[in-house]
Amino acid sequence: MQGHVWSFTVTSAQTWTVGVTGATGYAGGEVCRLLAGHPDLRLAGVHANASAGRRLGELQPHLLPFADLEVRPSAPEDLAGYDVVVLALPHGESAAIAAQLPPDTLVIDCGADHRLEDPAAWARWYGSEHAGAWPYGLPELPGRREELAGARRIAVPGCYPTAVSLALAPALAAGLAGPDVVVVAASGTSGAGKAAKPHLLGSEVMGSAGAYGVGGVHRHTPEMVQNLSRAAGRDVTVSFTPTLVPMSRGILATCTAPLADGADPAIDTAAVRAVYEKAYGDEPFVHLLPEGQWPTTAQVLGANTVVLQVAVDPDARRLVVVSAVDNLVKGTAGAAVQCANLALGLPETTGLPVVGVAP
Amino acid sequence: MQGHVWSFTVTSAQTWTVGVTGATGYAGGEVCRLLAGHPDLRLAGVHANASAGRRLGELQPHLLPFADLEVRPSAPEDLAGYDVVVLALPHGESAAIAAQLPPDTLVIDCGADHRLEDPAAWARWYGSEHAGAWPYGLPELPGRREELAGARRIAVPGCYPTAVSLALAPALAAGLAGPDVVVVAASGTSGAGKAAKPHLLGSEVMGSAGAYGVGGVHRHTPEMVQNLSRAAGRDVTVSFTPTLVPMSRGILATCTAPLADGADPAIDTAAVRAVYEKAYGDEPFVHLLPEGQWPTTAQVLGANTVVLQVAVDPDARRLVVVSAVDNLVKGTAGAAVQCANLALGLPETTGLPVVGVAP
Amino acid sequence: MQGHVWSFTVTSAQTWTVGVTGATGYAGGEVCRLLAGHPDLRLAGVHANASAGRRLGELQPHLLPFADLEVRPSAPEDLAGYDVVVLALPHGESAAIAAQLPPDTLVIDCGADHRLEDPAAWARWYGSEHAGAWPYGLPELPGRREELAGARRIAVPGCYPTAVSLALAPALAAGLAGPDVVVVAASGTSGAGKAAKPHLLGSEVMGSAGAYGVGGVHRHTPEMVQNLSRAAGRDVTVSFTPTLVPMSRGILATCTAPLADGADPAIDTAAVRAVYEKAYGDEPFVHLLPEGQWPTTAQVLGANTVVLQVAVDPDARRLVVVSAVDNLVKGTAGAAVQCANLALGLPETTGLPVVGVAP
Amino acid sequence: MQGHVWSFTVTSAQTWTVGVTGATGYAGGEVCRLLAGHPDLRLAGVHANASAGRRLGELQPHLLPFADLEVRPSAPEDLAGYDVVVLALPHGESAAIAAQLPPDTLVIDCGADHRLEDPAAWARWYGSEHAGAWPYGLPELPGRREELAGARRIAVPGCYPTAVSLALAPALAAGLAGPDVVVVAASGTSGAGKAAKPHLLGSEVMGSAGAYGVGGVHRHTPEMVQNLSRAAGRDVTVSFTPTLVPMSRGILATCTAPLADGADPAIDTAAVRAVYEKAYGDEPFVHLLPEGQWPTTAQVLGANTVVLQVAVDPDARRLVVVSAVDNLVKGTAGAAVQCANLALGLPETTGLPVVGVAP
Repeated sequence: MQGHVWSFTVTSAQTWTVGVTGATGYAGGEVCRLLAGHPDLRLAGVHANASAGRRLGELQPHLLPFADLEVRPSAPEDLAGYDVVVLALPHGESAAIAAQLPPDTLVIDCGADHRLEDPAAWARWYGSEHAGAWPYGLPELPGRREELAGARRIAVPGCYPTAVSLALAPALAAGLAGPDVVVVAASGTSGAGKAAKPHLLGSEVMGSAGAYGVGGVHRHTPEMVQNLSRAAGRDVTVSFTPTLVPMSRGILATCTAPLADGADPAIDTAAVRAVYEKAYGDEPFVHLLPEGQWPTTAQVLGANTVVLQVAVDPDARRLVVVSAVDNLVKGTAGAAVQCANLALGLPETTGLPVVGVAP
Repeated sequence: MQGHVWSFTVTSAQTWTVGVTGATGYAGGEVCRLLAGHPDLRLAGVHANASAGRRLGELQPHLLPFADLEVRPSAPEDLAGYDVVVLALPHGESAAIAAQLPPDTLVIDCGADHRLEDPAAWARWYGSEHAGAWPYGLPELPGRREELAGARRIAVPGCYPTAVSLALAPALAAGLAGPDVVVVAASGTSGAGKAAKPHLLGSEVMGSAGAYGVGGVHRHTPEMVQNLSRAAGRDVTVSFTPTLVPMSRGILATCTAPLADGADPAIDTAAVRAVYEKAYGDEPFVHLLPEGQWPTTAQVLGANTVVLQVAVDPDARRLVVVSAVDNLVKGTAGAAVQCANLALGLPETTGLPVVGVAP
Repeated sequence: MQGHVWSFTVTSAQTWTVGVTGATGYAGGEVCRLLAGHPDLRLAGVHANASAGRRLGELQPHLLPFADLEVRPSAPEDLAGYDVVVLALPHGESAAIAAQLPPDTLVIDCGADHRLEDPAAWARWYGSEHAGAWPYGLPELPGRREELAGARRIAVPGCYPTAVSLALAPALAAGLAGPDVVVVAASGTSGAGKAAKPHLLGSEVMGSAGAYGVGGVHRHTPEMVQNLSRAAGRDVTVSFTPTLVPMSRGILATCTAPLADGADPAIDTAAVRAVYEKAYGDEPFVHLLPEGQWPTTAQVLGANTVVLQVAVDPDARRLVVVSAVDNLVKGTAGAAVQCANLALGLPETTGLPVVGVAP
Repeated sequence: MQGHVWSFTVTSAQTWTVGVTGATGYAGGEVCRLLAGHPDLRLAGVHANASAGRRLGELQPHLLPFADLEVRPSAPEDLAGYDVVVLALPHGESAAIAAQLPPDTLVIDCGADHRLEDPAAWARWYGSEHAGAWPYGLPELPGRREELAGARRIAVPGCYPTAVSLALAPALAAGLAGPDVVVVAASGTSGAGKAAKPHLLGSEVMGSAGAYGVGGVHRHTPEMVQNLSRAAGRDVTVSFTPTLVPMSRGILATCTAPLADGADPAIDTAAVRAVYEKAYGDEPFVHLLPEGQWPTTAQVLGANTVVLQVAVDPDARRLVVVSAVDNLVKGTAGAAVQCANLALGLPETTGLPVVGVAP
């Protein structure tokens, strides 16, 4: 097997070694999948306390090139010696690990610990002491790409905040929309993780759509508020309702905000499109679809791509922006690899698919 | 076959005969399915111009008790002689047919022609002359049940307006919420009908969620505005975004409205629950779920049931109500049967399942 | 709520009370769903040791009419006083319970304990002492209906054996096919039960088909061998491979057997159809589809129906019969109700839907 | 856009230009998707008569890097000038086109025209004159890889024959199994193509499994017979039943054959595993799973991988081999790219993912 892996991974003068924690879960497993196609990053070790000692292939049968890797624990000493460490752990664990890794080791946290900049927000939503913010891994937001170049500690955004922030930031930054944001997002079940819970059984979710975390209680809400308030230059509120729909992957976010009061001339779809074309025209992973095409999650399945479309509702006086992402790729693992590319000085798109597996 | 059908349909002294147009489509087919279990209504004929002359079993293989019925055309003369005629036709066709049927024939229109009360709204959204409003078949809305008792012309509501109107009417009527309504609804694909279109192929929709009719252009919008404005006693606006998710049936509607300004004491979830318990406590088909349970479409699959849950978001200052219905049952065919029961003086729940086929 | 239940359950002079064990699982929950629509059987109590003391609605949210029933333990003393007791328990538990219930209590076992007639077969496949065979609840097999009339102990067949036995028994009984039977069946995930296991998560099963229990190790195999050998009047072998496909319910069984040697005239599809029409022509729940139509599980979703189609492959010299059932209805809970009807002297079809919830 | 494409496609000294016909369909679209990640093959033109003149992005919205390519007709003159032409057309069209292309143009036919070696078999199954066999694009079968090296006309195998031939060829070649082969395969709906037909609507296929082409009438049957007879060195028969299950992609093939008579010592699973390890141990795309793991289609979604597992059923005296492939990748488009790599002298695995997109 390994021989065949080499044939398409060693195509670079330099290769960085990567260790992945939580490699037996969905986010960590997806990092491994992407590394299998990355020319400059080499998966050198997989870690997960609960499964330590088992072959990765027993737990992630699709990761054939890495099937014989032994899963090791994820204590700091187990993670020493990698050029890059990707943490896909429950919140609250990454700070302690990062503190014991050398400062020149690139540590990329797929968890929530270092996303929020306001310690009070962290304390309210997570009930513990804030571990501090790290450079925020959404390079398509103004000013973020610069913070990531050369960084050695990076916080990967949440999957919902990625879809929502990219959908509304340009309109809010341009003053086209007001602060009363309402978002409803449909997510595939992989966002809920790999822990076996009855309500996540296939029998329960197939043929069924349901809501959860309703009423502003989902922990991704303050991250959306942070990003959109920063974009708007004022406080925004976000009424966020996540829903589970019968698919494994993908987020479809319907994001609305009231049209800015008394805009003159009246804001129309063309005006909004112009703002988004300017914001994302040079972005390799964010695409405003042609007029008349609306995002589907199938378009981005397995890809590090976000697709967007905008509309103005003149009766309801609201802007509606719909975005689609793969929660495990651009929503998590792909963002981690994109950030690693930036931090290591590689071309940002290295090893990242842009074409979804459709149909 | 027929013998076995008799064994569970003839259990009543009187039986009304029913003719169904559009019986080869999803809505008409569902009316037939429900009639197979109705003790007092007997499916006596099926009609569909395009398939006239074929056996129903060729087109609706699940309707085994009716497999040998010959599909007949749906001209008015073909529909004479039934006690009840259910029209499941494209909009614009029902008025002409109804005009040629006797006034004492119960005509139930599953289409849009007679839902809107405002001719100007009809003209704007459908671009033709208004055929006039009929008694509106949503008995759970204040005043509607009385209009339906004994009626001989009934307009069945749209599937989305059913889910949305029942979700928000009580709060608006009680003055708990303001008029800036934002609704995002996830629908199964059967709502898009049985006509073969590439974007509705299984290969396209499985594993994929997408939006359509974004920006306030969906024709169910004015029906929601009509119902919610009537409930609120003032004009409301509805920002409505429908989405397609990978399931055949079901609508999950996430309905939000701003909390009423300056309410004192502050509106909380308990206060909202009290209003909904009062509104629906005696309704056989509308259920406010216990606290902590959120609607899923699986709960109501194949049933004439609506399940609701409410939450107040104190940060976003919005009320969120989530409702789930089967678009083909309470959203269309079940509503038609429920209305027929009311119009004919039968117990309202006759022949209508309340338990969904889950898992 | 209860009031509305009454409105469609009390339509009979006599009513039998029913207690259901395992009511919090899929099979037991489906029994409850069917009882909600049964005019003569009344769900009087629900039992499940692990959830004793909780409201049924917490565990089976779709069972709205029964939401307030308290789940009680399932020890024999808890099951006293019912006219009918339905056992949906793991194998090995039903004999001890039945032994302590009065002989005139109708006990219907949805488990495996009493299906096999050969103690040696039981010992080999289950590794324990045989509890003895009960009347076998598949009335469509020759001689079985008579055994069920008036019975007070009934063994409900397994879901796969139901689909397979009905598919091949007539051809084997008529000497059209030989004993080297090969069956591959696709099942929805509800057949695997409600216990949360990682490989049954929605994320794992959606968009994926897989095999399990390959090589003749599935415990339903000896039950198929028993039924088909009895039909053939000789020993048959069954190569059985079950597969899981991405749906909650339904079994599609592809059943093949070699054409009988030296049949003269050659066996063709018409000859086979004639045999099946004779075998099932009067059966309310088993339907040979018209030529050219092939079974789908959607046709029978939620219904107590089996649909069949046959074909002869002249090149491979094999008969192929495809059958579709809902594993939770005709495959389990519907069969239990059908058997209860027979045992109690009610019309066999009472309270059992024959029309599937399609699309 | 193109700029971003360059950033990961121009990594090779030499690049071959590729033209794809049927690029608006599923097979052709998948070829385009794979070319987006191929370092040495460059998609230079897309062709489809019915959609000529439209932008590819209108018809294949996921193919973002190629969205602006204009779809051109697929007459021979339109296909001149490419180094490689991939034909994804209905059968009967490729021979005429290939005849007018230069002999040194690599022509890869994803259709059926050149798969069968026996003109009589072609005539029987397709009712037209045989266009002649081309080198058969399944390099993992004995002798085939050699025929493909340097070839300029290649026939890509059918998706079902790929899954079935790789599953049973080693056992038949080793004399472990007899000729009475029975295969039942579950396929995702993309195998049925992109033409809109009612029975392929999402509403029809979601939550439903069904059989089609039963009784040995599927046109992939003679291709299986050809491959397996060649492997066995004797005539084999194949009873083949294809089924449609609710997923977009993937084939799960359950393949059985009787154990060879009087083998001594008795054939067991270990003996079979040894044969398969020898047959596929060096193959980059065919993997015998470790004992206890069974194939799922999710493991190979979007990848050019086949996963296999074997079992011996001592009671039924049959060998069972289960294989999983992505019908659009190893089943069609990936095989086309793999064959192009071989024909052009590139490393066989170039540009082909081996890790499926799971979950």
